Amino acid sequence: MYWSKSFIPTLKENPQDAESVSHKLLLRAGLVRMLMAGAYSYLPLGLRVLENIQRIIRQEMNAIGASELLLPALQPLEIWQRTGRDKDLGEVMFKFIDRRKRAVVLGPTHEEIITDLVKNNVSSYRHLPLVLYQIQSKFRDELRPRFGLIRACEFIMKDAYSFDKDNQGLDKNYQAIYQAYQRIFQRCGLNYLITEADSGVMGGKVSHEFMAPAVDGEDIVLVCDKCVVHKANNEDQKCPRCGLAMKKVNTIEVGHIFKLGTKYSQALEAVFSDDQGALKPIIMGCYGIGVSRLISAVIEQHNDACGIIWPKELAPFQLIISPLDVTNAQVMQSAESIYQELKGLSFEVLFDDRDERAGVKFKDAELLGIPLQIIIGKESAKNNLLELIIRSNKEKLVDSKDIVLRKIKEFYHG
Amino acid sequence: MYWSKSFIPTLKENPQDAESVSHKLLLRAGLVRMLMAGAYSYLPLGLRVLENIQRIIRQEMNAIGASELLLPALQPLEIWQRTGRDKDLGEVMFKFIDRRKRAVVLGPTHEEIITDLVKNNVSSYRHLPLVLYQIQSKFRDELRPRFGLIRACEFIMKDAYSFDKDNQGLDKNYQAIYQAYQRIFQRCGLNYLITEADSGVMGGKVSHEFMAPAVDGEDIVLVCDKCVVHKANNEDQKCPRCGLAMKKVNTIEVGHIFKLGTKYSQALEAVFSDDQGALKPIIMGCYGIGVSRLISAVIEQHNDACGIIWPKELAPFQLIISPLDVTNAQVMQSAESIYQELKGLSFEVLFDDRDERAGVKFKDAELLGIPLQIIIGKESAKNNLLELIIRSNKEKLVDSKDIVLRKIKEFYHG
Repeated sequence: MYWSKSFIPTLKENPQDAESVSHKLLLRAGLVRMLMAGAYSYLPLGLRVLENIQRIIRQEMNAIGASELLLPALQPLEIWQRTGRDKDLGEVMFKFIDRRKRAVVLGPTHEEIITDLVKNNVSSYRHLPLVLYQIQSKFRDELRPRFGLIRACEFIMKDAYSFDKDNQGLDKNYQAIYQAYQRIFQRCGLNYLITEADSGVMGGKVSHEFMAPAVDGEDIVLVCDKCVVHKANNEDQKCPRCGLAMKKVNTIEVGHIFKLGTKYSQALEAVFSDDQGALKPIIMGCYGIGVSRLISAVIEQHNDACGIIWPKELAPFQLIISPLDVTNAQVMQSAESIYQELKGLSFEVLFDDRDERAGVKFKDAELLGIPLQIIIGKESAKNNLLELIIRSNKEKLVDSKDIVLRKIKEFYHG
Repeated sequence: MYWSKSFIPTLKENPQDAESVSHKLLLRAGLVRMLMAGAYSYLPLGLRVLENIQRIIRQEMNAIGASELLLPALQPLEIWQRTGRDKDLGEVMFKFIDRRKRAVVLGPTHEEIITDLVKNNVSSYRHLPLVLYQIQSKFRDELRPRFGLIRACEFIMKDAYSFDKDNQGLDKNYQAIYQAYQRIFQRCGLNYLITEADSGVMGGKVSHEFMAPAVDGEDIVLVCDKCVVHKANNEDQKCPRCGLAMKKVNTIEVGHIFKLGTKYSQALEAVFSDDQGALKPIIMGCYGIGVSRLISAVIEQHNDACGIIWPKELAPFQLIISPLDVTNAQVMQSAESIYQELKGLSFEVLFDDRDERAGVKFKDAELLGIPLQIIIGKESAKNNLLELIIRSNKEKLVDSKDIVLRKIKEFYHG
């Protein structure tokens, strides 16, 4: 991708209204722009990161036998009234009346909708178990949207739902998804804590949260060697296991999984006939990942004074090529040649073909946080050399194309 | 993918409330389900078709240098008031007041939003030309949603926008996208007509529509050898070129492209400084494809009495394997073996592992419309043979695995 053809509006200065490190870097690196408080546009680089996260999620969810679908954002209020959750969620749900006089809501989550769908299409124990998921935009009327993508009115979630004929089935799916989540967050390069959590408005008895430590995280988690606790009522809580004082950690919730049991299937009459012909409510679980928020959480954990440092699998590009003088034919020839060769090897490469000063290109490359940078100046072009810089540790290598290519392959393919 | 693990609820009977052939087949083949009039859930098979269309669109748009981004559905009403389009679109826009007392709309299209985004991030002729696009859900408060995905309240569009410094630039981008659209619709297996169209609520002077002939299409197009005309006022219109009577064709609009000029850039003050330092409004074009509606249009054109006949690039799977007796070990071993081999060759394969009668499996395979089916019965398993059926012409081949594999590769890779 040529920089000049894309849309990567970097900012030199920190935007005044950005509250957290990730929010500032999201804006400065040209990943997103705010349309209004709580609603963001993903620019090409931000969308590439989003798609990388989505690819990881799809791979790990498909690997455990889950099937992807896509549910509507527009939903009839009536279905929420049947579980009483229109009241539980209250003003957080966007509600309106359409031209046909229907009471419509914008989906803040999809338990009711998917339970109704499964109820209408599954009737026998032979159709179970079933794990369905989607990656989709959710809507919540937040009174105080904050921190960019962390608390937004429109945001992207992966929500999965399991349907089983008995509790052993639920336990098995819950465990499989718990482990898939560990792989997903690991591949995203995220440090995270797992806490036994409050099921809150979702219902059910067992739930776990995946919490990413972050300076500006709003969720306080208490941690000691033997225990991770969330939503503690008092500040100096002692560990329920060892009795010692616990450490406070600011975190961002990136995942939450629940054993729902039959709360939704009973309210919406989603039943199946078992192998004896008896009708029973389907046993459910639900499993969320805050996809757009994950971008913020990863940036919170992977940055330095110069910008973002993307984990390999999330980086919007794998390499950035920076010819330092676009008016020099030898420099551009060398840059274009390595660009084409890397693309031929299926690397995702950003070519900084802008007619900008070397200082601007260096600063922007550091801000963008692409893991590897290839720099080509007049001297190196003349001597048939390439300069490779690793963003994370600023390690530098000046060598022939072959050696640099070998280093790049090692870096990505181990 | 094992059928039993996925969610493919086929229907034996035609649903009563389905109005068109495509609507019936969308429901019967388990591609979609209606949540409420105008809002549909895409089940796993429907989502796979959707993703195939999206992949084709992305490839062809990226090939002409367009960059993908993603804009919010939630938008401030205020920005629509600046172009006066809140009045033009009127009740078709979903509008509401949020908890912060903001007047919010659900985006029915994104000209205003993207013009505002480009205005805030592009200032110089050096940043132009720029072609941006997104694939995203749009919302329209339709009084009479109809025909399944054809006229819905929530639907998926590809909308692209070009930004140029002069009319020559616009002409060039318009032409490039016009040609990309031809490649997109061709790859989707769609027959289509191109008409010079009325620009309507979009504004601008030049526009073309891409119309797919379909029995249940609501848009009437008049055709003769030399001319294609849309939205004619009288029934027996004569061709403006040759004077002969024109033929009426029912169609579905699948694409629409517009030279917008400066309508939006002037209203929203999206200006750039030219190479002399003078401020000028950016010259724009906009380019839409009805992505979800395309599924319906393709089904309208590709079906027979037994079900759908998917074009190769859109098919939810490339092959379906139907072992006729899942209790027979030899049959299942043969089926599993060819399944793994085809997956190893990167084919997308659906394995009908359901314990159903042969008749049910045949009928469902025809209904789903997957281009190739491999059937394995007791006899063929015993004799190490496979039976291959081509869905479109019902051509049948019974032969050894090697010959059948060669035929499959020929079918897909030519």
